[in-house]
Amino acid sequence: MNSVLKSLSTEDLTNELNIAKARFEQLKAANLSLDITRGKPGTDQVALSNRLDGILNGDFIAHESKIDSRNYGNFDGLPEAKKLVAPLLGVLPTEVFIGGNSSLSLMYHTIAFATFFGVPNGIAPWGKGAKIIAIVPGYDRHFTLTAELGLELISVPMTAEGPDMDMVEELVKDPTVKGIWCVPKYSNPTGNTYSAKVVDRLAKLGKIATSDFRIIWDNAYEVHHLVQNGDQLTNIMELSRTYGTEDSVLIYGSMSKITFAGAAFAYTGMSPTNLKWFSKHMSMITVGDDKVNQLRHVRMFKDLSDIEMHMQQHAKIINPKFEAFYKVFDQELKDLSYATWTMPNGGYFISVDLINGCASKVVSLAASAGLKLTPAGATFPYGKDPEDKNVRIAPTYPPLTEVEQAAKLFAVCIKVVSLEEELGQR
Amino acid sequence: MNSVLKSLSTEDLTNELNIAKARFEQLKAANLSLDITRGKPGTDQVALSNRLDGILNGDFIAHESKIDSRNYGNFDGLPEAKKLVAPLLGVLPTEVFIGGNSSLSLMYHTIAFATFFGVPNGIAPWGKGAKIIAIVPGYDRHFTLTAELGLELISVPMTAEGPDMDMVEELVKDPTVKGIWCVPKYSNPTGNTYSAKVVDRLAKLGKIATSDFRIIWDNAYEVHHLVQNGDQLTNIMELSRTYGTEDSVLIYGSMSKITFAGAAFAYTGMSPTNLKWFSKHMSMITVGDDKVNQLRHVRMFKDLSDIEMHMQQHAKIINPKFEAFYKVFDQELKDLSYATWTMPNGGYFISVDLINGCASKVVSLAASAGLKLTPAGATFPYGKDPEDKNVRIAPTYPPLTEVEQAAKLFAVCIKVVSLEEELGQR
Repeated sequence: MNSVLKSLSTEDLTNELNIAKARFEQLKAANLSLDITRGKPGTDQVALSNRLDGILNGDFIAHESKIDSRNYGNFDGLPEAKKLVAPLLGVLPTEVFIGGNSSLSLMYHTIAFATFFGVPNGIAPWGKGAKIIAIVPGYDRHFTLTAELGLELISVPMTAEGPDMDMVEELVKDPTVKGIWCVPKYSNPTGNTYSAKVVDRLAKLGKIATSDFRIIWDNAYEVHHLVQNGDQLTNIMELSRTYGTEDSVLIYGSMSKITFAGAAFAYTGMSPTNLKWFSKHMSMITVGDDKVNQLRHVRMFKDLSDIEMHMQQHAKIINPKFEAFYKVFDQELKDLSYATWTMPNGGYFISVDLINGCASKVVSLAASAGLKLTPAGATFPYGKDPEDKNVRIAPTYPPLTEVEQAAKLFAVCIKVVSLEEELGQR
Repeated sequence: MNSVLKSLSTEDLTNELNIAKARFEQLKAANLSLDITRGKPGTDQVALSNRLDGILNGDFIAHESKIDSRNYGNFDGLPEAKKLVAPLLGVLPTEVFIGGNSSLSLMYHTIAFATFFGVPNGIAPWGKGAKIIAIVPGYDRHFTLTAELGLELISVPMTAEGPDMDMVEELVKDPTVKGIWCVPKYSNPTGNTYSAKVVDRLAKLGKIATSDFRIIWDNAYEVHHLVQNGDQLTNIMELSRTYGTEDSVLIYGSMSKITFAGAAFAYTGMSPTNLKWFSKHMSMITVGDDKVNQLRHVRMFKDLSDIEMHMQQHAKIINPKFEAFYKVFDQELKDLSYATWTMPNGGYFISVDLINGCASKVVSLAASAGLKLTPAGATFPYGKDPEDKNVRIAPTYPPLTEVEQAAKLFAVCIKVVSLEEELGQR
């Protein structure tokens, strides 16, 4: 609860509430239509990659491998594409599988294969009743697909360093705990990056967990810095090789938020044992993914440094949108401690913690005035935030002027709901 | 067995065999490297669509729906793409789901969802032990994915009209029979198109089968004619609507063999009930497929008639490759009835039936001389052709001169093996 609001007189609170309500009505009268629900790039961001269409200039043959991208074959991807993304995954090019446009789909398939067929070194399919650790708050699509596949989610809190590793290490002693979801860099939604110490402890989990335990390492934001000198993430595959736990690590990434959202390609990095298993099952599903689009990306980016330069242009566009929120939050929410919020060095989200019990009400109130927010609870398994306090802000999609309006409206909603909550308890 | 060879004297057979063997050795000495295993378009075929890359010319917004193809959203596809392919599926645009680059993947997912979660109007998931009817000879990838998902395959023979419907109607009285695989037009590998009568009987199956029975209608070759005035396939969705069995029909198609193989997009058409169910489960796997590539196709083809004109160019390139086989077969195999073969009006395959027990040996012998053929048995469930007689020829990929060499070598191998077989039995 909020001790600053508690220290105010009822009269002062009532005054504040009246002012906030008046401002809310004024903003509502503007008939806004704002949407900050999803981590979508803005139109000016996707336009940075417009040259992708036509970049092949009639030359559809990959230059090194001599593969014709327009025909079937090479179902795990162009060698050139593997080489390009291997450093993004922190694995060897031979450990890469290039997928379709969606890393979510690669993760879904891995977990579905594990659930229904079992993983290498597993004695049986994971099956229903297997448990997966979810770091909370986290990414809703991870949680919903896990539940869809009949697996149970166990929440473990996020700390500033990453998952609460004492809890994780205790949990994985249970052999029905088969996996852990991680967004290790610029995590969704908290924006923090796992510390070297936490990555080290995660890399060692394979020594204490059951042999079919897997870390699902969704490194979605590896190069998605908002600032110069962004966070560095420890390479978990390298570490796990030194511990002999490399089969416990499955790494994912996507070009979607680098070039075209939903029209790029995704990739996964795995130990040779896991890769062989994954490829075998994937070969039932597809003859191979879109190599023409892989080749477009290979032509656009020579190497990692090309990608990093390109990402600086993204940062220039979206950093002001994050700053717009911080500015409003500082002005509106700081003095009376209405909320706390993250200020990540990268990624797509701001995570806001309100007074307990206020998140759903703030989301509803904002919706009534034309501001769509991610549903309260979405960042928790089964859509239930036990304290009903977390709201995820995705500021990247709308133009800056709309982001500024959204930030103001959001802050005013927080004030109205928080003050009503405090007054209601007196 | 072959009655013409039986009527020949042992001396004549031995003479024939010696001639065939000498020709085989001569061809083998040429150190050929020929591959007619897979239904792959040739390089000149995929080149017909080179203008796809760059066709957007900087305009990434779909003109009718105003959707920005470069961003997330509209996970079931661009409305413009649905409109384009609806006539290929024979369904309404509102009954279309646009997928990624692979129709196999759409089929796999449908069957996986049915197996693990159950279909609408089903009382439970299909589960392991469910049975699926396979028309034989048929498409190996259909069979292997079905087996991977733990379902049992029951073979039903293909007739000139389509599946043996007396058998099919008898089988579906068993409620554990949950589905039937069909390639209804220019079937893989037999090349025939189901007759109107057979399609009518299939459309009625939903009345006698269990409520969670599904026809998996892989209409891969709808516009893939080799000749003018190709086959017409009766529209099964329209028919099934008149019988009230529309929930029993699931239709699939792909742009892969129209534009770029493996770099186009696939689609499925379903009743609204099935589509809602399919979309719900697909939404766990993907945020949506590649809309930029959908838009490229929408810009390339205004409508079905554009696609049909484009397909005539394909036919011009590949029909001579089919003709090359027929010419050699006529010269080499006809007089002594070494084999029978299909002469389809469309599709990608010639199906060759040899003397019983000869298929594996022919495939091995051809391989020893540098000609790769689809493995014998591949066109049957579990890779087992009970009579070991069927070989699938895919003549489209190699250049015409290589196709001519492949046809000759194949015919000589058939002669050698058939003559040895007949002599061995004397």
